[in-house]
Amino acid sequence: MRDFSTDHRWLSINTATVRRQRGEPWPLPRILDACAARGIRAVAPWRDQVAAVGLGAAAAQIKALGLGLSGYCRGGMFTYTDDASRQAVRDDNRRALDEACTLNAPCLVLVVGGLPGALAGTPAHRDISLSRSQVAEGIAWLLDEARARRMPLAIEPLHPMYAADRACINTLAQALDLCDALDPSCSGALGVAVDAYHVWWDPQLPAQIARAGAGRLLAYHVCDWLVPTTDLLEDRGMMGDGVIDLPRLRGWVEAAGYAGYSEVEIFSRANWWQREGGEVLDTCIERHRRCV
Amino acid sequence: MRDFSTDHRWLSINTATVRRQRGEPWPLPRILDACAARGIRAVAPWRDQVAAVGLGAAAAQIKALGLGLSGYCRGGMFTYTDDASRQAVRDDNRRALDEACTLNAPCLVLVVGGLPGALAGTPAHRDISLSRSQVAEGIAWLLDEARARRMPLAIEPLHPMYAADRACINTLAQALDLCDALDPSCSGALGVAVDAYHVWWDPQLPAQIARAGAGRLLAYHVCDWLVPTTDLLEDRGMMGDGVIDLPRLRGWVEAAGYAGYSEVEIFSRANWWQREGGEVLDTCIERHRRCV
Repeated sequence: MRDFSTDHRWLSINTATVRRQRGEPWPLPRILDACAARGIRAVAPWRDQVAAVGLGAAAAQIKALGLGLSGYCRGGMFTYTDDASRQAVRDDNRRALDEACTLNAPCLVLVVGGLPGALAGTPAHRDISLSRSQVAEGIAWLLDEARARRMPLAIEPLHPMYAADRACINTLAQALDLCDALDPSCSGALGVAVDAYHVWWDPQLPAQIARAGAGRLLAYHVCDWLVPTTDLLEDRGMMGDGVIDLPRLRGWVEAAGYAGYSEVEIFSRANWWQREGGEVLDTCIERHRRCV
Repeated sequence: MRDFSTDHRWLSINTATVRRQRGEPWPLPRILDACAARGIRAVAPWRDQVAAVGLGAAAAQIKALGLGLSGYCRGGMFTYTDDASRQAVRDDNRRALDEACTLNAPCLVLVVGGLPGALAGTPAHRDISLSRSQVAEGIAWLLDEARARRMPLAIEPLHPMYAADRACINTLAQALDLCDALDPSCSGALGVAVDAYHVWWDPQLPAQIARAGAGRLLAYHVCDWLVPTTDLLEDRGMMGDGVIDLPRLRGWVEAAGYAGYSEVEIFSRANWWQREGGEVLDTCIERHRRCV
């Protein structure tokens, strides 16, 4: 297991972590500058942040600063209610792939979607197995597009509390079953993004991480699970402030062959989004060395 | 699958559903009277509600009203930090068993506990596998006590969002693995309580319900998962108001051999606990007939 205590070369910052600072939200260029100024080598930007500044400008700045990506957030949201919405989803995912290529991302992260309409508060139906079928169909389609571009897809299983509205892939086993079905040769075109927040509770976790192996482990995300957790979406903790045994989990991931970035992704309305962005990044660095 | 549309003979009310009405919290005797007055045949009372009125008085009233129990809430919370706390847990669970016997409960429901101290906001450690070992040890011990009293134990897997502070048994598969390890002959002394709220998201659910079979399915609980869900604990929905396909789930449970009560358990600070208790019970009856 790599020693993270003496530097932060394997730290990546998901740009959502410092995007909503109270009083002074940081646009992407400022986030990139602040990361580079601290010797942070990689980021994982969100599509809307890239769009706000322009894809070309974002790619140019990332290149000029010598930054890498640990992933591109995000494709997915495959569930649909009719042909038109299915087509819209496909078009959007094709654009996400093209953007990921332009940004030299190592993978496009997929948050696969839940019951169609649920995120907007009006679920179209209650059939989660139908959503799961549509997700499998959507990834199968996207995989051809991704192979043509040599852009790996990373399925991110989300915590079961997001099954209804964000992602109906809720365990690592389920994501790997899908990988095995769609890419049985483990070609490198399809894998998973393991986020400690989503999977830490899973009694099958060590076995499934071992099953994934280096061939499927395309990204690794960290934050922490707080007790109590006061909001289902925006109350993630800074590493070390919660109950996830992060060194143990990273040990499993690295024993399986993962040797990439540890990406910090924290949505925290009441705490970290209330602080100055530089303080948040400095804390990420310190905790990356001490708690991850 | 039984037809619930014409009567509510298989409806049970978990007494938490109407215990915290704003302005006028209902003590247990009033809840029991209100259920009996509506032809509701069964309840699942909580230990603190029983203690508040006295075990003997509660048992006498339940008997006088001709009510049955669908379960007794609850034993468990097995995780500990030292010998003293382990012994306190055991003593408390022994008392819970005795109370369940006095009340003629069909089973004692077990919420097994998470990281010790986490529920109070101060987790003693981050080792969920240690908690899981302690839970297995605790249930193994309690099972002997339970067999001696002929009181079945029902392990209730809780939603993964409660893994840290309430229960580190988070899937039906995990609960059944424990049942198989501790009671391989499926003697009837150990089984599971399946709560739709906790398990509806699980891609393994139909297979695991079939695996459980009539021998392990000791209780079945319903409410609904709302979108959005605004609180991790106290924002459960009334059946029909959320996204769980309850008839489908009950179909699986009944196909596996379950023929007992459908117990309504709703924690709802902002909605149902704000309403008059009689209205809540009437709604439970109507929804039981139409949505369960």
